[in-house]
Amino acid sequence: MYKKKELQDIISTAFHTADFHSAPSSLYDPIKYMMELGGKRLRPLLTLMSCDMFGGNINEALAPAMGLELFHNFTLLHDDIMDQAPLRRGKETVFKKWNTNSAILSGDTLFVMAYELVTKTTPALLPQVLELFNDTARKVCEGQQYDMDYEYRGDVSIADYILMIRLKTAVLISCSLKLGAIIAKASDREADLIYAFGENLGLAFQLQDDYLDVFGEEDKFGKEIGNDIVTNKKTYLYLKAFERAGGSSLEFLSKHFNEKSIPVKEKVKTITGIYRELQIDSVTRALIDEYFAKALSIIEQINIPADKKQTLLEIAGQMVNRES
Amino acid sequence: MYKKKELQDIISTAFHTADFHSAPSSLYDPIKYMMELGGKRLRPLLTLMSCDMFGGNINEALAPAMGLELFHNFTLLHDDIMDQAPLRRGKETVFKKWNTNSAILSGDTLFVMAYELVTKTTPALLPQVLELFNDTARKVCEGQQYDMDYEYRGDVSIADYILMIRLKTAVLISCSLKLGAIIAKASDREADLIYAFGENLGLAFQLQDDYLDVFGEEDKFGKEIGNDIVTNKKTYLYLKAFERAGGSSLEFLSKHFNEKSIPVKEKVKTITGIYRELQIDSVTRALIDEYFAKALSIIEQINIPADKKQTLLEIAGQMVNRES
Repeated sequence: MYKKKELQDIISTAFHTADFHSAPSSLYDPIKYMMELGGKRLRPLLTLMSCDMFGGNINEALAPAMGLELFHNFTLLHDDIMDQAPLRRGKETVFKKWNTNSAILSGDTLFVMAYELVTKTTPALLPQVLELFNDTARKVCEGQQYDMDYEYRGDVSIADYILMIRLKTAVLISCSLKLGAIIAKASDREADLIYAFGENLGLAFQLQDDYLDVFGEEDKFGKEIGNDIVTNKKTYLYLKAFERAGGSSLEFLSKHFNEKSIPVKEKVKTITGIYRELQIDSVTRALIDEYFAKALSIIEQINIPADKKQTLLEIAGQMVNRES
Repeated sequence: MYKKKELQDIISTAFHTADFHSAPSSLYDPIKYMMELGGKRLRPLLTLMSCDMFGGNINEALAPAMGLELFHNFTLLHDDIMDQAPLRRGKETVFKKWNTNSAILSGDTLFVMAYELVTKTTPALLPQVLELFNDTARKVCEGQQYDMDYEYRGDVSIADYILMIRLKTAVLISCSLKLGAIIAKASDREADLIYAFGENLGLAFQLQDDYLDVFGEEDKFGKEIGNDIVTNKKTYLYLKAFERAGGSSLEFLSKHFNEKSIPVKEKVKTITGIYRELQIDSVTRALIDEYFAKALSIIEQINIPADKKQTLLEIAGQMVNRES
């Protein structure tokens, strides 16, 4: 069994030695730039860990694992255009540094490169790998569409929100884990279990992100706190607050979310205060714990000695208890 | 052997009964709209013809053939954003009817759906099919990038232009034909020959498009004549004219291409006149004939009775002698 650090080093080396460049440079420079912005490389790590846990050869999983990271970056590249986001990991986004057309086309090319890597696997496994990856890619697009739609919808429910983050975030976590299982030639049952584990873990992971956006510490989070509040994003915290608020606190909440004249810092402070009064922090933590517990109960059903699950459980725990 | 009309009916029925709809409708409505705009469905037709010619079962080629049409439409959907094109087949483009974000994301989803269909084939053929399709998809993106780059470059050569149309247009024609050959389990040599045939045919096909844009008849062409002249597009005709023009005609050409105050109709008429004087019409036709002759000499090397090649040769002839 590999340790987390060892796998991270393998992934890091693979990305450092990978050559994303080709002609024309106007197409590939943005791709190289995007891939060099870094990130935690969480998805390939999950693929290798899962492959290792199921007794597979991680060398066979490395190219497909990298493919998932390329896919993730492709979605970020296009999302940044759609969100008109100026910064990504503290640096200019591709569409800002180049232009929208470059970002569209470099993104498309990155998507092709993701397919090239994901399908660099044993031919016999290709049908399964493709079915998983195609399904995941489509769902991630659907999730992003829901996310955009919700911005203009006044009737978003908590169930709608969970559906959205399941599609936009959780299924790629599931896919990363299941891909490792497929390459390790795990049984269908095991592959499905690790997928279900990933889905619950992914939901907890995204909810943790929403939680940190409000209750995190700026130094550790690495991003400005309260961005979701400033942009009126309909996160679980927002939706739950409106659900729990009654009478005067509901009025106060509505007023503060819709009033454009309130200074940003004051708005964040006030809304955070209401969230605390409504115990949105503990309610959110409880839901994170619930999804995480569900994930744990699922991985328990996989018939593998507990010590082999340790590395994966460790990273899973970090994903939902992280501060950044 | 199937007749052209029979294959067209099979493809048409397949598209009419295909269900491109799913949730959320905000994501799938633009896809449905795009696919219902129609078009000649030339690429799937080539796949089925090639499959049939090599003795394959066209039913096995139908889904992948449709996948190529979806891919083609995905590229058009994103190209229309990049070109800010208001119309496609006489109707509003997706980004105009919806918005840029919808067009980006629906395009991405259509790309996934293309992969789903292209890879709906005998598992044993998947590695070959994927290698071909990934390579093609990447090249088409590169071609589009060169096309955008050339707009701002003053040093585009005829060789640069041929490279661009080879990538942007010809390789998808090649891919369509080779895909049919792979599914028919043709030999590698045969698959490579039909690919090379397609590349030369594809170049002739694109040059015919450029030719019609200037020398076609508006009623038959279905689009306004002279659009490439109006937009100063560096087509083969444009580049050849600058190459052949000398002295006063070169000056005249430069002036008319760069002078913004000349009314559009007058510009088209004047430039077309210079093109005729410089015999750009016959020079272009000669190049089209050259590529077509090359294509024919390649398909002759395929060891199949001439009568079995007839349907494909017929459509190939129409592609380079078409008026629309």
